[in-house]
Amino acid sequence: MGPEEFRQRGYQAVDWLAGYMERLGELPVKSSAEPGDIRAMLPAEAPEHGEDFADVLGDLDRVILPGITHWQAPGFFAYFPANASGPSALADLVSSGLGAQGMLWDTGPAVTELEQHMLDWLAAALGLPEKFRGNGVIQDSASSGTLCAVLAARHRAGGVDALPNMVAYTSEQAHSSVAKGLRVAGIPAERVRFIATTPAYAMRADHLAYEIVQDRNNGLIPFFVAATVGTTSTTALDPVAEVGWAATNFDAWLHVDAAFAGAAALCPEMRFLNAGLESADSYVFNPHKWMLANFDCSALYVADRASLNEALSITPEYLRNPASDSGAVVDYRDWQVPLGRRFRALKLWFVLRHYGLEGLRAHIRRHIAWAAELAGWVEADDRFELAAPTVVSLVCFNHVGGNDATRRVLEAVNQSGRAYLTPTTIDGRLILRVAIGSPQTERHHIEQLWNIIQSAA
Amino acid sequence: MGPEEFRQRGYQAVDWLAGYMERLGELPVKSSAEPGDIRAMLPAEAPEHGEDFADVLGDLDRVILPGITHWQAPGFFAYFPANASGPSALADLVSSGLGAQGMLWDTGPAVTELEQHMLDWLAAALGLPEKFRGNGVIQDSASSGTLCAVLAARHRAGGVDALPNMVAYTSEQAHSSVAKGLRVAGIPAERVRFIATTPAYAMRADHLAYEIVQDRNNGLIPFFVAATVGTTSTTALDPVAEVGWAATNFDAWLHVDAAFAGAAALCPEMRFLNAGLESADSYVFNPHKWMLANFDCSALYVADRASLNEALSITPEYLRNPASDSGAVVDYRDWQVPLGRRFRALKLWFVLRHYGLEGLRAHIRRHIAWAAELAGWVEADDRFELAAPTVVSLVCFNHVGGNDATRRVLEAVNQSGRAYLTPTTIDGRLILRVAIGSPQTERHHIEQLWNIIQSAA
Repeated sequence: MGPEEFRQRGYQAVDWLAGYMERLGELPVKSSAEPGDIRAMLPAEAPEHGEDFADVLGDLDRVILPGITHWQAPGFFAYFPANASGPSALADLVSSGLGAQGMLWDTGPAVTELEQHMLDWLAAALGLPEKFRGNGVIQDSASSGTLCAVLAARHRAGGVDALPNMVAYTSEQAHSSVAKGLRVAGIPAERVRFIATTPAYAMRADHLAYEIVQDRNNGLIPFFVAATVGTTSTTALDPVAEVGWAATNFDAWLHVDAAFAGAAALCPEMRFLNAGLESADSYVFNPHKWMLANFDCSALYVADRASLNEALSITPEYLRNPASDSGAVVDYRDWQVPLGRRFRALKLWFVLRHYGLEGLRAHIRRHIAWAAELAGWVEADDRFELAAPTVVSLVCFNHVGGNDATRRVLEAVNQSGRAYLTPTTIDGRLILRVAIGSPQTERHHIEQLWNIIQSAA
Repeated sequence: MGPEEFRQRGYQAVDWLAGYMERLGELPVKSSAEPGDIRAMLPAEAPEHGEDFADVLGDLDRVILPGITHWQAPGFFAYFPANASGPSALADLVSSGLGAQGMLWDTGPAVTELEQHMLDWLAAALGLPEKFRGNGVIQDSASSGTLCAVLAARHRAGGVDALPNMVAYTSEQAHSSVAKGLRVAGIPAERVRFIATTPAYAMRADHLAYEIVQDRNNGLIPFFVAATVGTTSTTALDPVAEVGWAATNFDAWLHVDAAFAGAAALCPEMRFLNAGLESADSYVFNPHKWMLANFDCSALYVADRASLNEALSITPEYLRNPASDSGAVVDYRDWQVPLGRRFRALKLWFVLRHYGLEGLRAHIRRHIAWAAELAGWVEADDRFELAAPTVVSLVCFNHVGGNDATRRVLEAVNQSGRAYLTPTTIDGRLILRVAIGSPQTERHHIEQLWNIIQSAA
C-alpha cells in the first residue's frame, strides 16, 4: 500500500473510528455474543486474492462490533478502566507506521531516549522518589513488570542456585500476576506466603514480619515482597512503609504494584498513595489504565538497575555495537523479557502534551469526586452497605440481603445494556465493584447506574 | 479529544505518515544521533497545560526523525526485517481506538475468536501440521513465545520441583532468546547445552542425542530442545526431524523457532522449511518480521495446549465468569505471561485480506529471488566469498582479505546513508549480512548496495 492509497484508506479508518466514538454511548456495553458466534461469520480460509479495503472496514461493523465489549463506553464500570484516547491512538498509528525497533539504543536512539525522558517526566509528575529517575522502562503490562522485579530480586538474592530456598510474600488480596510471576520464575506455590489482611483488606505488616522471621529461622531466603497500592478487588492500600521495613530489614526486594491507583498521584492531594515508596526496590503503575495512554503502556521503575540488567542481559555477537559497548546508553532489551520492542513512549508524549498535567488531573479528579458521591448514595440507602473504603474511584458495596440479592442487582445492571459491572467475592461475600475511569463517562451516567441499581433492589 | 477533533487530528497524523512514506527513500537509513542528542531537545518537565496537536506532529520531524533508524527504508538490510504496512498500521489504529481487552473470551469475544481464526488461517496457509489447528496464540515476540514453550515443557516434566535436574538443549547458533527464556524459567547456564553445528551452522543431531543420553545416564532430566529454522546469523536450518527424533525419544519438549524464515512457507516451493514439524511440541514464527504485520505480532502454536494452560493459569475471583467456567471458550491470558492483551488479530485480518495470500507470496518471492541474485554476484567476484548458504533472503559473505577488509566494506556501506547492514561474527570471522525483506526495497536498491560494496572493496 503506497503513500497515496494509505492516505485515502487512512482517512477512511479515521472516519470509522470517529463514527465509533460518536455511537459509543448508544451501544450495549457488554457483548451478548455466544461462543463461536464471531468465527461463524468468518470464511474458513484466508483469501487467495486481495480484497477491497472498504469491505474490510465494513466488516468491522458486521463481524467485529457484535463481539466487542465496549471498554471505552461511558457505562463501562467493570474490572479497572483501560483508557483509550485520540492522541494516544494516533501515537500508536505513528509508531506502527514508523515501524522502528527499540531493543537497543542503537536500533533507534529516539525510541530509547524519548522513553527515558517520558518516564522521568512521569516520575516527577507523580512525585516518585528521586532514586527512580533515570530508571524507568515501559512494559506491556504490570504482570510483566512484576515478573521483571521478581527476576531482579532472584538475581540479587543469589540467582537460580538459591532458588530452592527462596520465599516470597504478598497479601491475600494481591493481584494474580504476583503469583504468576513467581511461578514463572520458578518459585513453587508452597514458598509463596499470602499474608492475611486487615478488615480494610490491607496487608498485615506484623504478620509479614512474623512470617519472614519464621522462614529465616528455618534456613529459607525471604527474597521478595510485593505490596499493593490499590488492590484489584477493593483498591485497598497496603502499609508500604511498614511492609518495606520488614522487607528491607531482612534483605528482601520490595516491589510495589500500583497498577491502577498509581496514576492518581498526579494530583498532589493524592500523594498519600506514594507513602513508603522510599523503601521500594521497584514500582509499577499502568498509564494504560487511568492515564489515557492506550494499552499496552505500563511503567516500571527500579531503584537498582544493575540487578535488573544483570538478570536479563545476554549479548550475542549480532547485537553488539559501539554505543552499547561504550556504556553510554541504555539498551532496553536488558530491562524486559522480550528482545523486540515498539515505540510506545510516543503515546505518553502525545498524551502528556495534548492534555497537559492539569488536563490529566482534571480527568482523574472528576472520577474520584463521582466515586465519593456514589459512595455517599450507597451509605444513605438502607438496602446497601459499603464493602470497603472508597480510596480512589472504585466503589465496593453489596445488598444487605445477602449474595442472592446482590446478584440480582448485578444481573439487572448488566442486562440493561447501559452499564457493565464485574463483581468480586471476598470471604464468601459477593461484592459489586463500580470502577469509574472512562473519559466518556459523565456524572449523569453514574446517576443512571444508581437508578438502575435502586430499581433492581 | 472528541470524535470531531479526532477526525481532524487523525487526518493530520495520516498525512504525516503518508509524507514520511514518500520521503523514506531519501532519508539516511541509520540515525547518526549521538547519545543524549534526542533528550537534549526535550523540555525537562512535562507541560502543565495542553499544547497544540500540530506542534506535537511537527516535533516528529524536529525531534524524533533525527533519532530514527528507518527500519522501513528500502536500504534497510540490517538484523531481520520488521515489516510495517499500511493495512497493518491502520488495524493497529482501530485496535487502539476500540481499546478492547482480550485477556478472557468474556472481556471481548471478537478479540479472542478473530485471533483463533487468524491463527488457523495462517496454519493452513503455511501448511503446518494439523495438530496446531485451534492451538495458536499471538505473542508480542518470539522471545515470549519461546519462554511460554519453556514453561509448558517445565510443567510437563514435573514442574518447579524437578527444576534442579532439568537440562535444556539448543544449538550454538540459536537466538539469544532461548538462553534468556531458560534463564527466566530458572534453568542455570550450566544446564543449557549449546550443541555444536555443521559447517553450514545447523545443529548436529548426533551430538544432541549423545548429550541427551549422557545427561539421562547422570540422572538429569532432558526436558527441552529448541531447534531453529533460519538462525539469526545465517538462516541455517537445523535438521528438525532428526532433532525431533532425539527429543521425543527421550520425552523432551521440541520447540521450533522459525521467527524469520517461517513466513516463507506461505510459498509451496518453500515448504521444505516445515520438514520435521510433525514432531514439534511448539512452533513460533513472526508475522511482524516478513509478513507485513506490524510489530508486535508473533504466532505461537502448541500441540498440547493443556501443558501450556496448566503452566500459566491462575484464576482469582474477579476473573471468573460463566463462559470460562463452562470450558466452551479459550481464555488467552492462560496462553501468555501478561494478563492484559491488545486486539492484535486485527492486523493479521487486515493484512491477509488486503494482500491476499498471493500478494504475500509475491512479497516474499521477490526477496528470495533478489537474494539468490546477490549471492550469485558475490560468488562471481573473487574478492568476496559466501559465508553460508543462502536459504531464504539473507545473504552472508565476507571479503577474502580478512576481517579488516570486511570491516572497511561494512563501514563504507553504513556511512553511505543509502544502506544499512549489521554484521555477525562466527568463529572469529566477521560476516556481512544482507537481510532482504522490506516492502519498500526494489531490485535497483540491491544493485545500488552491490555497487557500494564493490567500490569499497
